[in-house]
Amino acid sequence: MEQRLTLVTLGVRDLERSVAFYRDGLGWAPWSGSGGDFMLFPLQGGFGLALYPRPTLAEDAGLKDARGWGGMTLAQNVASRAEVDAVLTRAVWAGGTLLRRAAEKEWGGYSGYFADPDGHPWEVAWNPHFEMKRGLLALRS
Amino acid sequence: MEQRLTLVTLGVRDLERSVAFYRDGLGWAPWSGSGGDFMLFPLQGGFGLALYPRPTLAEDAGLKDARGWGGMTLAQNVASRAEVDAVLTRAVWAGGTLLRRAAEKEWGGYSGYFADPDGHPWEVAWNPHFEMKRGLLALRS
Repeated sequence: MEQRLTLVTLGVRDLERSVAFYRDGLGWAPWSGSGGDFMLFPLQGGFGLALYPRPTLAEDAGLKDARGWGGMTLAQNVASRAEVDAVLTRAVWAGGTLLRRAAEKEWGGYSGYFADPDGHPWEVAWNPHFEMKRGLLALRS
Repeated sequence: MEQRLTLVTLGVRDLERSVAFYRDGLGWAPWSGSGGDFMLFPLQGGFGLALYPRPTLAEDAGLKDARGWGGMTLAQNVASRAEVDAVLTRAVWAGGTLLRRAAEKEWGGYSGYFADPDGHPWEVAWNPHFEMKRGLLALRS
């Protein structure tokens, strides 16, 4: 199995509310082919973040919904502590919820968390151990 | 907030078991800087899949763990129906669980799902509506 990932799909309760958050609030541009109950935001590097109704997603995958957090987080790493603060502020302005205020971390970085309107958690982090180039991770296996 | 994602982190109960699945079973190469209770697999396009103990991840994000599926899925899109079947077979051989046998989908593609050792769901899909180049999504906003 190739070392690749094509989509991260977030189950949502109200697609319009989620689109308002990601598109209007965060300023992200959806794929022009999005439609119906599926909305896709192309991300850097040839993959994407998709929004899809949570009950339909559970049914599609053959899963029972525990109706809470299921052990996955997303992260956006940025270039400085100040940028962590700025992105968290923007996400809360857009309708997100602050889960953890940004703070110095024992691993040497600085990060905080917000949740999107469905509670999906995003970490916003500055990590001095990660080499990044123009927003892309540049780490070797 | 830039239209980017740096990490998808999967909370795991037994890091060695999960590393055995992704590294030894699927054949993925970890970041050379991985260590302690954090393991990172660089993916195409400057982002990565990370493994981290689930209780620590919940604590870090300030979340209560619903101890089940929380409404997120991952997907790897491949070039043909035959490749969907081959990847699902490999994942089950590696210790994954088949959640949904591959089947024709109403949206015109072909896909199935497996779960990793912690139950995190992966869809393996062939989607004729997605333009892909060498394993990368090539979709425009």
